[in-house]
Amino acid sequence: MDSVSFGSDNHSGIHPQVLAAIQKANEGFCPAYGDDPLTVSVLNEIKELFGGNCDAWFVITGTGANILCLQAVMHSYNAIFCPQSAHINTDECGAVQKFTQGRLLPIETAEGKLTPELIAPHLLGNRDQHHSQAKIISLSQSTEYGTLYTLQELQRLADFAHQNNMFLHIDGARLANAAAALNCSLKDMTKDISADIVSFGGTKNGLLCGEAIISFRPELTSAMRFYRKQASQLLSKMRFIAAQFQAYLEDDLYLKNARTANAMAKLLAERLREIPELIVTQEVAVNSVFVILPRQIIEPLQQKYHFYTWNEALNEVRLMCSFNTTETHIESFIQDLKALLIATSPHC
Amino acid sequence: MDSVSFGSDNHSGIHPQVLAAIQKANEGFCPAYGDDPLTVSVLNEIKELFGGNCDAWFVITGTGANILCLQAVMHSYNAIFCPQSAHINTDECGAVQKFTQGRLLPIETAEGKLTPELIAPHLLGNRDQHHSQAKIISLSQSTEYGTLYTLQELQRLADFAHQNNMFLHIDGARLANAAAALNCSLKDMTKDISADIVSFGGTKNGLLCGEAIISFRPELTSAMRFYRKQASQLLSKMRFIAAQFQAYLEDDLYLKNARTANAMAKLLAERLREIPELIVTQEVAVNSVFVILPRQIIEPLQQKYHFYTWNEALNEVRLMCSFNTTETHIESFIQDLKALLIATSPHC
Amino acid sequence: MDSVSFGSDNHSGIHPQVLAAIQKANEGFCPAYGDDPLTVSVLNEIKELFGGNCDAWFVITGTGANILCLQAVMHSYNAIFCPQSAHINTDECGAVQKFTQGRLLPIETAEGKLTPELIAPHLLGNRDQHHSQAKIISLSQSTEYGTLYTLQELQRLADFAHQNNMFLHIDGARLANAAAALNCSLKDMTKDISADIVSFGGTKNGLLCGEAIISFRPELTSAMRFYRKQASQLLSKMRFIAAQFQAYLEDDLYLKNARTANAMAKLLAERLREIPELIVTQEVAVNSVFVILPRQIIEPLQQKYHFYTWNEALNEVRLMCSFNTTETHIESFIQDLKALLIATSPHC
Amino acid sequence: MDSVSFGSDNHSGIHPQVLAAIQKANEGFCPAYGDDPLTVSVLNEIKELFGGNCDAWFVITGTGANILCLQAVMHSYNAIFCPQSAHINTDECGAVQKFTQGRLLPIETAEGKLTPELIAPHLLGNRDQHHSQAKIISLSQSTEYGTLYTLQELQRLADFAHQNNMFLHIDGARLANAAAALNCSLKDMTKDISADIVSFGGTKNGLLCGEAIISFRPELTSAMRFYRKQASQLLSKMRFIAAQFQAYLEDDLYLKNARTANAMAKLLAERLREIPELIVTQEVAVNSVFVILPRQIIEPLQQKYHFYTWNEALNEVRLMCSFNTTETHIESFIQDLKALLIATSPHC
Repeated sequence: MDSVSFGSDNHSGIHPQVLAAIQKANEGFCPAYGDDPLTVSVLNEIKELFGGNCDAWFVITGTGANILCLQAVMHSYNAIFCPQSAHINTDECGAVQKFTQGRLLPIETAEGKLTPELIAPHLLGNRDQHHSQAKIISLSQSTEYGTLYTLQELQRLADFAHQNNMFLHIDGARLANAAAALNCSLKDMTKDISADIVSFGGTKNGLLCGEAIISFRPELTSAMRFYRKQASQLLSKMRFIAAQFQAYLEDDLYLKNARTANAMAKLLAERLREIPELIVTQEVAVNSVFVILPRQIIEPLQQKYHFYTWNEALNEVRLMCSFNTTETHIESFIQDLKALLIATSPHC
Repeated sequence: MDSVSFGSDNHSGIHPQVLAAIQKANEGFCPAYGDDPLTVSVLNEIKELFGGNCDAWFVITGTGANILCLQAVMHSYNAIFCPQSAHINTDECGAVQKFTQGRLLPIETAEGKLTPELIAPHLLGNRDQHHSQAKIISLSQSTEYGTLYTLQELQRLADFAHQNNMFLHIDGARLANAAAALNCSLKDMTKDISADIVSFGGTKNGLLCGEAIISFRPELTSAMRFYRKQASQLLSKMRFIAAQFQAYLEDDLYLKNARTANAMAKLLAERLREIPELIVTQEVAVNSVFVILPRQIIEPLQQKYHFYTWNEALNEVRLMCSFNTTETHIESFIQDLKALLIATSPHC
Repeated sequence: MDSVSFGSDNHSGIHPQVLAAIQKANEGFCPAYGDDPLTVSVLNEIKELFGGNCDAWFVITGTGANILCLQAVMHSYNAIFCPQSAHINTDECGAVQKFTQGRLLPIETAEGKLTPELIAPHLLGNRDQHHSQAKIISLSQSTEYGTLYTLQELQRLADFAHQNNMFLHIDGARLANAAAALNCSLKDMTKDISADIVSFGGTKNGLLCGEAIISFRPELTSAMRFYRKQASQLLSKMRFIAAQFQAYLEDDLYLKNARTANAMAKLLAERLREIPELIVTQEVAVNSVFVILPRQIIEPLQQKYHFYTWNEALNEVRLMCSFNTTETHIESFIQDLKALLIATSPHC
Repeated sequence: MDSVSFGSDNHSGIHPQVLAAIQKANEGFCPAYGDDPLTVSVLNEIKELFGGNCDAWFVITGTGANILCLQAVMHSYNAIFCPQSAHINTDECGAVQKFTQGRLLPIETAEGKLTPELIAPHLLGNRDQHHSQAKIISLSQSTEYGTLYTLQELQRLADFAHQNNMFLHIDGARLANAAAALNCSLKDMTKDISADIVSFGGTKNGLLCGEAIISFRPELTSAMRFYRKQASQLLSKMRFIAAQFQAYLEDDLYLKNARTANAMAKLLAERLREIPELIVTQEVAVNSVFVILPRQIIEPLQQKYHFYTWNEALNEVRLMCSFNTTETHIESFIQDLKALLIATSPHC
């Protein structure tokens, strides 16, 4: 294993309390596929956390959560608006199309954020039998660019969706980071802005694996359990996802982890901004930092810090922090970066 | 949690050595999605175990393993022969059809076992554009009835498949139990009988979750990594599946666990056969016991022992043993069963 | 072209009145895709013919009609009961699975006919997330064996379907032949027995191409127009399907054609029954005759009469009559058959 | 029926010679599903016309042709580059996604035409398991904007496709119009520029219905007959598509029809350019004219001439000519247009 990585919040491991919960749940026998009492009770906790009058299910992966949220409220003749940069559009190998047989309508955005104004021109022609019928607006909170929708922006998109006979889906792989950054509750960001179907990510924020789907339209999503099985997203030993989420919710661990990751990203950005040769390209709202580095130092730094180049043409890289990123990791990175800057400087 | 269950090998938990391996892997950071060194090295171990010249991938669930094995070697216009009782036919909510858009051709069998003779009559008409083209024979080793194919039977089916331009798929959710029962190696049962694509189950035999797919036709299955992502079966924190398999293979833990489960089933069957009112309906080859119970004691026993009624009409139930079933569980079950027999006897 | 064929009612051509209608419709310009007045008016005629309070659409092929009827009322996690011999099961290359991603549950039947008793045992386990949810009973009227359901049998199946939260689909590729044989109206056989969704075939009974779908659950099938386009079953120059159906309905041409085909099959069967060496194996209810011939005369007869061997093992062949089969065709066939019997008799 | 329409080449009917061919083929009986001698012989003619060493199939609709061309050379994890304006992207209700479960990658273009330069930036990241693998470049010749690729442009795109492990698909719904305009042969435009799979449209150019698919990679497309059946695109009475194509090819009727349509569009554009209030927005390469009209005359003109508004914001309409558009239609349109201009002029 590597001692440090800014590659992805997926490069981190399991939070100790989450691992302890797995261990604790590993006693005796219990019904499989979610019929155990722990699963039932933790799902109830989640439903309460999101404000009640909703339904909830555990799934295994973020891609699984996305395809199931979408499938639950659409048919093959429907289309889904999403930002060009959406995970469902760029990073899931066409899983949405494979599972739903439906169509994605990716929209160019500035910072990974949709607006009603960006979507509206594409609604023309809806209702005609020759066109896929737009049914869902799918957004990521926080976005793949590390940006955030305000509660007002979310509400506007939900209202716009409903006025146009569509649903609002939130890909919440990093919903905890968003809640931490906006200093609001999960309910504020979902039920209260009239979202229809939402995923609440665990994997990127300290779980071994596990995501929750929350439906605020339970009358429309009663087939979820069948689709979940069809999607191979029904874990047999479900108690171990439930146990992880129990730890994740206890004393707001999900928020604590997210706050740490966000704070580390802020610190990292600050330290980077102190270096005049570098340009931090995006506001740091959650746990990622986008920065333009001199090309010659990118590869040497990647050897140790495992981050991705985001935009090859711009020499822009993405640095992700996670719940177990530490100030030591950041200082080490800054030191190495500075040393490389000097070593590769033309004056040497 | 319950102190005992004969409901399913999925009702058991995580073997302590497997859990310890998860804990050990939980250090520092590492690449996600299988690019970490542990995943690479454990996959190499698996390939060796299956005889080399093969390819291997980790997936999360048994259903995931099945749909990916099948998809990798078929198209939507193909059909898959399987026993009527196959897990892919009866217990996966149509996941195969959802993912592959292809057709299952379930065959009535006596004890869950296919033969060339059962399949041959259904091959007529192949090649015609009006008919799905049969491309795969899919069998489960051990079967859903707890029966086993001998190595000779497997070889005959593989030969029959290849003679008819088909592939042989083995659903090996309980491959370890079969290896233990046949006292043969995994290679004996797969590569050496000319199987084409195989899953090697971990979840039912002591893992939290994790299955491996092994392809003996690597030239045909190079798209597996794309299909795996499309199927939402690519775990981001892959090191934790790799770590589980590392423990699973170390000192043949998979065999030890399987031998325990099989032995417990044998013991349970013996004890049941001593009770004249009961009929054990299937030979006990691996870790399940099928037995006809007096109807009036089924429900009271299920309260504590959580087993399933297999055939409602016959009052036949299925009792599954797993790696952590103990003699104490069995003696307790037999005592309770006997007490119920007396309590519900008409002589009382 | 051949002067005669008993191979299929698809081997016949276009009825002269239907061709004349195409010709008549070929004037000037008109909106495409069904927005023309002729299409609207002929669809209204069809809706009336089926008793009103229904919706109707034109499609191009019989397979197209079937997949659209099924898709309109199901999801991928649903299953469809049908006879093993159903066209959707055996002769459409898996088109249902391709389009709907759902599951067929074929049932063994005696003469191609389902009954509630045959289906009931397979309903166990419905509602469970591990199983495809049975949603449709699909039957063919007349059947692929040339047999017929009585109105009472249809009503029983519809009632059984509805009691079990399912729909009744009728594959009516030969619905006209059934109406002619039962001497009942199309409404009697569909709306009045509580069918939910029905196709009304034209191609096998004198059209160039064209089928109609009738939904008695218009509130459930409002997405048909989108699915039809997705299925490539929306003909651009729709007026030419409408024109064909206009001729087909005028003066009950569909019934006249069907009566002719049925009468010819009856005559053929009578003449065959006069020959002691032959066994007519099925009652001749509509336009097909199943007969066991001496093996040595099958191939010579097929050279001229182009019929199919139905059951290779039994030397059973299927002889189909169509709207343009004539007594001359039949007498010629009987003469040739008799001559071959003599020529191949061991006494010669 | 309407006496005139500039709405679509689909608003026209059947060319008299094509209808005569249907009539001529309507004699006696013949094998269905393409096993008749006429189908075999006309397909051979088509293969010769496209230069030989290719395979060919008849299908019914343009959408059917497109989904089959694409499916034949792709898998669900593949992606297809096409212009944003491509028929497969905008006008087929997601039929491609429904059938192939794959992904479209629409590219913004100026006039509906792709270039290697437009596609190249989107190839980054190919080969990674997280991304759909781009496999096909799909273009329309002529395009949906009535523009044309030169032979050189086609060859460049084919070369670019092959250099990047992709195939070139040509949606040839209006391939005849393109051949007429470029004054080249079908072979020049397909085989000779190294296209891989091509459709050759008939419906929009004088057929009742019928398209041909030509594969220049027959070794890759041997499953076409199965996919065609799965797509409900296998017409049972296939002789009637074959007969239409026979007439279509005889004495180059396809070219004559296309030349007429193209010439009428040129004439229409000339006459429109004489009117100073109007702006013809696209060069008129084939049979469509795009023109900006004063908003107030659009609707009154549409009443009689049935054309579509292409760009609502610009008041741009599309006027399509077809094989049976006449000079009289055009003069009548120009007169009515001029009268409306005067009637609605502010000076009146």
